[in-house]
Amino acid sequence: MSNTRVLELLGASLPAGGLVTGEHAVRPFETDGLTAIRETPWAVALPESVAQVRAVLEICREHGVAVVTRGAGTGLSGGARPLQDGVLLALTKMNRITEVDLDACTATVEPGVTNLAISQAVRQHGLYYAPDPSSQLACSIGGNVAENSGGVHCLKYGLTVHNVTGLVVQTFEGDELTIGGKGLELPGLDLLAVMMGSEGMLGVVTEVTVKLLPLPTAKRVLLGAFDDLEDAGRAVGAIIAQGIIPAGLEMMDNPSIRAAEDFAAAGYPREAAAILLCELDGTEEEVEHDAERVRTVLESHGAEVRMAAEEAEQERLWKGRKSAFPAMGRIAPDYYCMDGTIPRSELAGVLAGIGRLADEAGLQVANVFHAGDGNLHPLILFDANEGDQLERAEALGGRILELCVEVGGTVTGEHGVGVEKLDQMCVQFNDTELAQFHALKAAFDPAGLMNPGKAIPTLARCSELGGMHVHQGRLPHPELERF
Amino acid sequence: MSNTRVLELLGASLPAGGLVTGEHAVRPFETDGLTAIRETPWAVALPESVAQVRAVLEICREHGVAVVTRGAGTGLSGGARPLQDGVLLALTKMNRITEVDLDACTATVEPGVTNLAISQAVRQHGLYYAPDPSSQLACSIGGNVAENSGGVHCLKYGLTVHNVTGLVVQTFEGDELTIGGKGLELPGLDLLAVMMGSEGMLGVVTEVTVKLLPLPTAKRVLLGAFDDLEDAGRAVGAIIAQGIIPAGLEMMDNPSIRAAEDFAAAGYPREAAAILLCELDGTEEEVEHDAERVRTVLESHGAEVRMAAEEAEQERLWKGRKSAFPAMGRIAPDYYCMDGTIPRSELAGVLAGIGRLADEAGLQVANVFHAGDGNLHPLILFDANEGDQLERAEALGGRILELCVEVGGTVTGEHGVGVEKLDQMCVQFNDTELAQFHALKAAFDPAGLMNPGKAIPTLARCSELGGMHVHQGRLPHPELERF
Repeated sequence: MSNTRVLELLGASLPAGGLVTGEHAVRPFETDGLTAIRETPWAVALPESVAQVRAVLEICREHGVAVVTRGAGTGLSGGARPLQDGVLLALTKMNRITEVDLDACTATVEPGVTNLAISQAVRQHGLYYAPDPSSQLACSIGGNVAENSGGVHCLKYGLTVHNVTGLVVQTFEGDELTIGGKGLELPGLDLLAVMMGSEGMLGVVTEVTVKLLPLPTAKRVLLGAFDDLEDAGRAVGAIIAQGIIPAGLEMMDNPSIRAAEDFAAAGYPREAAAILLCELDGTEEEVEHDAERVRTVLESHGAEVRMAAEEAEQERLWKGRKSAFPAMGRIAPDYYCMDGTIPRSELAGVLAGIGRLADEAGLQVANVFHAGDGNLHPLILFDANEGDQLERAEALGGRILELCVEVGGTVTGEHGVGVEKLDQMCVQFNDTELAQFHALKAAFDPAGLMNPGKAIPTLARCSELGGMHVHQGRLPHPELERF
Repeated sequence: MSNTRVLELLGASLPAGGLVTGEHAVRPFETDGLTAIRETPWAVALPESVAQVRAVLEICREHGVAVVTRGAGTGLSGGARPLQDGVLLALTKMNRITEVDLDACTATVEPGVTNLAISQAVRQHGLYYAPDPSSQLACSIGGNVAENSGGVHCLKYGLTVHNVTGLVVQTFEGDELTIGGKGLELPGLDLLAVMMGSEGMLGVVTEVTVKLLPLPTAKRVLLGAFDDLEDAGRAVGAIIAQGIIPAGLEMMDNPSIRAAEDFAAAGYPREAAAILLCELDGTEEEVEHDAERVRTVLESHGAEVRMAAEEAEQERLWKGRKSAFPAMGRIAPDYYCMDGTIPRSELAGVLAGIGRLADEAGLQVANVFHAGDGNLHPLILFDANEGDQLERAEALGGRILELCVEVGGTVTGEHGVGVEKLDQMCVQFNDTELAQFHALKAAFDPAGLMNPGKAIPTLARCSELGGMHVHQGRLPHPELERF
C-alpha cells in the first residue's frame, strides 16, 4: 500500500484539520524543548478522543509505521522528537478535565490538560496538584507522566509517580489497559510505576487520575546568602538532617543570581557566591517553628538570612528563581540545561568539580537547581555560532553527567533520557540491565514501533562507546581523583 | 540427571546445614502465614551469601527446577507456599545490615533482616524505617519488598514502594541487576517499582536500600468511641477532608473491641459500636493543633473522645489494636484475615454490606483495619472442625473482596495476591490486563520457574470462573443492589 493511502486512512480517522502534513505545516512540531535536535515528522495526528487515538494506532500497526506521542512539547531531553518516517501523535486537543472527586481527592483528566490547569480547576475546593515543573503553565499532564516530571516542590511532595493513582493506556497492539484507580494500592505487578517516565515507549496514555492535596494554610520563604558556594551546599544537608522537609529548597550560584536579578529584580544579593531559597509550608505554628530552625542552620553556615512572611515578597523571591532560565539569554545566546542527580552529601564537592570541568572546557556554567533532592541543573552557556562551542558544550554536559554517576548519582532527575542522554545511559547501566529494559519494553510493544530509539540505548551503541560503565562510583575515573 | 544428583549439587553449593531435605525436616517450611494452604517442599536451601544464591539459581536453571523464595514466612496470602517438586530458597540467614549512611539517610541491608531490626539499629541516630506491618518483629525486609507491605503508618508514610530506594536483584537467568540507589530518582523504566509487590516472580532480591526518616519529636493518640459504625466510617473521611494526614487512623468494630480488651486490657469502651484510633506525629505545636481539630471532627460525628498525650497511655491504646488479631483466638478457633481496599467515601456502606454478607453466610466477621487509607481487614471467624465452616469462610472472603472491587477498590491492600486471591484477580482485571502481567513476568523470567502459579492467574483459570470481570464498579453485580 502506498504512503498516500496510509495518509488517506489517517485523515479519514481524524476530524477536519486533525491530520497535518507538508513540510511547512509540520515544522512547528519538528522539535520539543531540546531545540538543538530536530527532525521533520512525516505526519502529525491531532486526535480529540480515545477512539481516534485507537484508530491512528491501528492504522500505524497495520502498516508498520512508528508512532511518537507528544504532549505540549516542552520536554527537555528530546523524548518527543519526531521521526521523518513516523506519525507524531500530538494529544494537545484532548484537554478535558472529566471528573473531580472531592471524597477521594482525585481529578481524572485527559492527557493534554496542562499541569497548572488542574490546580486552577480545583483551587475553589482548597486543593491543588503538587508536582510543578517550571513549564507548568504549558506542559501537559500526559507529558509529565511520560517524563515522571518533578519541580520545585518534589522534595516534599514527590515526583509525578508519587502523585498519579490511575491511568488508562492504549498499547500499540490495540489493547486498552486500566491501571490503578483512585487509591494508593493496586494488586499485581506495578504497571502504573512502569508507565511513569517511560517516555512514550510502552503505550499511549489517554486518561490520568491524579491525587489532589489540600492547599497549605501557611508559608514562609527564607533566603540565605552565602559568601562561599560549598558552605551553601553543606547547609542543604544540615537542614534535612534536622528532620525538616522544606516544600522547596533551591540553590543558585553567582552567575544565576546576577542574571535573574537583572531580569526579574527579585531583590537578590548580587555579590553573594550562592543563595538558598527555602520554602516551608503547613500550619502557621509549624512553619513558624521550622522557619526559626532553618534560620539557625543557615546562619551557622555563614549565611545572611532574610525571611519573607508576606505573599507578595514570597512571590518576588520565587519569581527570580523561575526566571533564571530565560534570564540566561542576557549572558549568552544559547544554554544547554543539564539534569543530573547526586546524593546531597556530595553537593559541595560536585559543584567544585563542575567548576573545574567548565574551566577546562573554556565555557561558563551557571547553577540553579533543586538542592534539597540533589537534582542539579547546570546551565552550560555558549554561542552556537562561535566555532566549536556547541560541540564543547555537549561534551562538557556529558562529562558533568558522568561525574554525577561516579559519586553515586544518576544521569537524569526529572527531564528524562530522550535522545539527549542515550550515551550516558551506557555509563549508568551495564549491558545486563539495559537488556532488561529492552525486554520490558518488548513486553508492552513487541513491534518496537512506539517512540523507537529513545530512552534506552542499544547494546551496540554502548559497545561502541567503550567500557565506561560505572555503578555508584565503584569504578575509578580520572575526574574523581581531583576531589 | 537424577534428582539425587541435583540435591548433591545444591548441597555442595551451600554451607553445612544449608540444604534441608526429608519430609520431617522440611515440615516447618510447608506453609507461610496463610496456614490453610500447605505443600511440602522438595528441598529447602538456606544460603548465607549472594554467591550461594546465584549458585542455587544456576543449578535450578540448568535442571529446570522451580524456585520459591521465602523470607520469614509471615506472609498472609500464600506467596511463599513451597512446591513439592521445587526448591524453597529461604533467605533468613542473610540478615546483615551492611551500611547506614547518615548523610543520605539510608540503610543498606540483606533481605533477611527483619523490619524492626532496621529501626532498632538506627534509633541511636534519631532515625527509623517507617513501614510497620503488624508482623514487624518477625517479617523480613525482603518479604516486605515481595509483598509491598504497609502497616499502621502507611497512610502518612507510604507503602514499602515509597520507602525503598535501591535493590540488587538476581534473575533466574543468572543476571544481577542493580536498581536505583540512595536517591529518589532513577533513569530508565521503573524496575524498582516493578520489583515491589512482585511476590518473588521476577527475581531474588539480595540487597535492599531503605529510606530512613527522623523520629518525630511529638505524638498524640486520640480514641473516638462511636455508638454507630457508619458514623465512624464518615468521621474518617471528614478528618482527611480537613487536610490532616494522621500517622495512623485505625478502626475497630465492637467484636474486635471486646476481643482486644479481654486480651490486652487497653482501656477500650467495651460497649462502643466502633472506635477510631488516630495518631498524629510531628512537632509539638503541629500535633497539638491538629489534635484539637481531630477532636472537633470526631465529636461532631457523635464520638466520645479521649486523648493520650503520655507515651505509656499511647502504647496501651496501640497494644489493644496490635493484639486484635491474636485476641480473636478467644472468640473462635480459626479466623481468616481478608485484605481489600476501598475508596474512603465507601467505608460506611461497605461495612454495612460486609455485615449483610456475613449474616447470609451464618458467620461472624470482626473488623479491625487501616481506615485512613480504606484498607479493610475483615476477620472471618470460624471453626475448621465444624462442618463446612472453612468452605463457607472462604466463599464469604471471596464475596467481600468482590464487593471491594465493585465500589472501585482492589482485592489487596498490603498482603499480596499469593495463591489466596488468584480468583479475585480475575474479577479485578480483564484478560488483556492479565496478559500484560504475564508478558512482564516473562521479560524477567522467560523460563517461568520463579514462584510459578502465584499472584497472576492464568487466562484459562479466569475463563473457567466465568465472566465476573468488573472495573471500578462499572458492571452491575447482585451485591451492589443492596446498597
